[in-house]
Amino acid sequence: MIRPGCTLGILGGGQLGRMIAMAAAQLGLRTHVYAPEENSPAFEVATEYTIAAYEDEANLVRFAKAVDVVTYEFENVPSETAATLSAHALLAPNAQALAVSQDRFLEKSFIAGLGIAVAPFAPVSSEAELAEAVERIGRPAVLKTRRFGYDGKGQVKIGPEADPIAGWDEIGRAASILEGFVPFEREVSVVAARTASGAFAAYDLCANEHRNHILDTTAVPAGVSPDTEEQAVRIARSIAESLDYVGVLAVELFLVTDDGSERLVVNEIAPRVHNSGHWTLGGAATSQFEQHVRAVCGWPLGETARLGRRVEMKNLIGHDVDAWEEILAEPGAHLHLYGKTEARAGRKMGHVTRVFPDQG
Amino acid sequence: MIRPGCTLGILGGGQLGRMIAMAAAQLGLRTHVYAPEENSPAFEVATEYTIAAYEDEANLVRFAKAVDVVTYEFENVPSETAATLSAHALLAPNAQALAVSQDRFLEKSFIAGLGIAVAPFAPVSSEAELAEAVERIGRPAVLKTRRFGYDGKGQVKIGPEADPIAGWDEIGRAASILEGFVPFEREVSVVAARTASGAFAAYDLCANEHRNHILDTTAVPAGVSPDTEEQAVRIARSIAESLDYVGVLAVELFLVTDDGSERLVVNEIAPRVHNSGHWTLGGAATSQFEQHVRAVCGWPLGETARLGRRVEMKNLIGHDVDAWEEILAEPGAHLHLYGKTEARAGRKMGHVTRVFPDQG
Repeated sequence: MIRPGCTLGILGGGQLGRMIAMAAAQLGLRTHVYAPEENSPAFEVATEYTIAAYEDEANLVRFAKAVDVVTYEFENVPSETAATLSAHALLAPNAQALAVSQDRFLEKSFIAGLGIAVAPFAPVSSEAELAEAVERIGRPAVLKTRRFGYDGKGQVKIGPEADPIAGWDEIGRAASILEGFVPFEREVSVVAARTASGAFAAYDLCANEHRNHILDTTAVPAGVSPDTEEQAVRIARSIAESLDYVGVLAVELFLVTDDGSERLVVNEIAPRVHNSGHWTLGGAATSQFEQHVRAVCGWPLGETARLGRRVEMKNLIGHDVDAWEEILAEPGAHLHLYGKTEARAGRKMGHVTRVFPDQG
Repeated sequence: MIRPGCTLGILGGGQLGRMIAMAAAQLGLRTHVYAPEENSPAFEVATEYTIAAYEDEANLVRFAKAVDVVTYEFENVPSETAATLSAHALLAPNAQALAVSQDRFLEKSFIAGLGIAVAPFAPVSSEAELAEAVERIGRPAVLKTRRFGYDGKGQVKIGPEADPIAGWDEIGRAASILEGFVPFEREVSVVAARTASGAFAAYDLCANEHRNHILDTTAVPAGVSPDTEEQAVRIARSIAESLDYVGVLAVELFLVTDDGSERLVVNEIAPRVHNSGHWTLGGAATSQFEQHVRAVCGWPLGETARLGRRVEMKNLIGHDVDAWEEILAEPGAHLHLYGKTEARAGRKMGHVTRVFPDQG
């Protein structure tokens, strides 16, 4: 049994690992962060850290033996890394969750197999398959690499006039899927947690807006019908249960409105705490980071109730962060900075959460 | 000017330093904790730490030069230590605040000099002075060492029949003060912050209950009249301004009820974040730890509004902490553990904050 005083291992040293480590410390856990980059943001708040490659087996084994449970902040953990860690420590979420979410084809097949709506999709690993996929899915469509895509990287749109092969060239002819275009109204996400004993708790559905393919703002409540909100939670629960999932997961969905009725289409799943759940830090009774720690430790889940009638989270990207002092002076704004030194364009430097009280 | 990315130095490695360090990290600061004890709780969340004595001048100088501002978690910082640090770094709160709060005689004289009520008191440094003090103050009274008293240590009650000299022997015949007994209804405290530019913000008055001379619970609101609450804040502000104070300070007061009317008598001041302000972590818009960091960095103060209609904080002392799992399962309870390994009797192991929502 994991108790306060035990050590949580965290793979990945970015802002998600940093906020997980802080939540773990609040609950009396020690933390050990493993990441290849020197000066990783999470190192600054960790009890211990290891700087080593994710492929460095000796260091992985040493790390796994030094901790009581291992979690991670990113879904692209190599499967060999996951296997090595699992052999010496409890890994949560499990390797299956990683395998499914790392590969867009596997992910969509898995979700569709649960009877949950996804965009039409087809695998592309040859010019012949590409032609067949375009024929079947139609245009416009999006060609996406099966692996390692994030924030719009590894994606190319195939418009009515475009040459699909030129598009495939653009993303390096990697194994891909072609996805049909979903005419969505809005992007929403469910952030939820599940424990090994099957306890499950979801936060309020979030409405997300992107800018340059990077999450810009999250607003809660999402402004959908109660039925749609319930359906979204059922989808998340079904996915979590089918994966025997342990920890916080996020499910990104498209909200489609046909003749005034709403339906949901799953875009992708993230087997980790998620940027669209940052609002819970200060905006919900329990933050997603604390919830994740509780779940991976096998502890009772916390309350997910929203604080205030509305909560908004805005990412501070690149030089957005220069406004830190104005944000500090703003009533009701909660500033979170990640300790990154250089404000490069497109880099997530921090976020601000605004909680609008019940009154007024 | 101190900005995110700068380093906050923290003298003292206990739970207060730990929670200050976590608040600093949230705002993108690096932290450096200086404490003599190995395995200090604050080390686990600090960017850097130094294990050295508070009298180790070479290490103090190295520490002060490595940080942008130094603060502390305890008032018994030796004056030579404060002087050394001040010579090489900004020290906040300043050395004067330390000097006044370290010595009960100086403290009471200073407060009385501001026209604020304190218990009757007299200095005791000889048997003659002791006899004179008992004569003037009357009985029952409390004999307290001028320095290094906390949680009831260094105190002895002088009852109607007691031999004052025997009492003084009990506390080692240290330089002391004799304090008259205040027939108080309740103990309350103000936690407030002031910046170098004179900005000031107080939290709601707290009602405190002690057990075995150690703070047991804090409840907010304190249930006093609005006039009394205003008076308490005026007292804290007057003390802070007179000391040119920078940071969070706590003023402990006795609430005395005469014929139904309330009056306040200052017990003592703490030039630091304070146990009776722990409820603000999760129970107020800005925690006292974040507020302290904002103040010592010269940043705008945060909102002090209470969340919910009532907030209660309970210390987990010694084996109280064994209930951690039940507390995690309790809706509305926020658990904070300090990472201490051994649950000795009287040791503060953590605390739990319960926020009662506005509704219901």
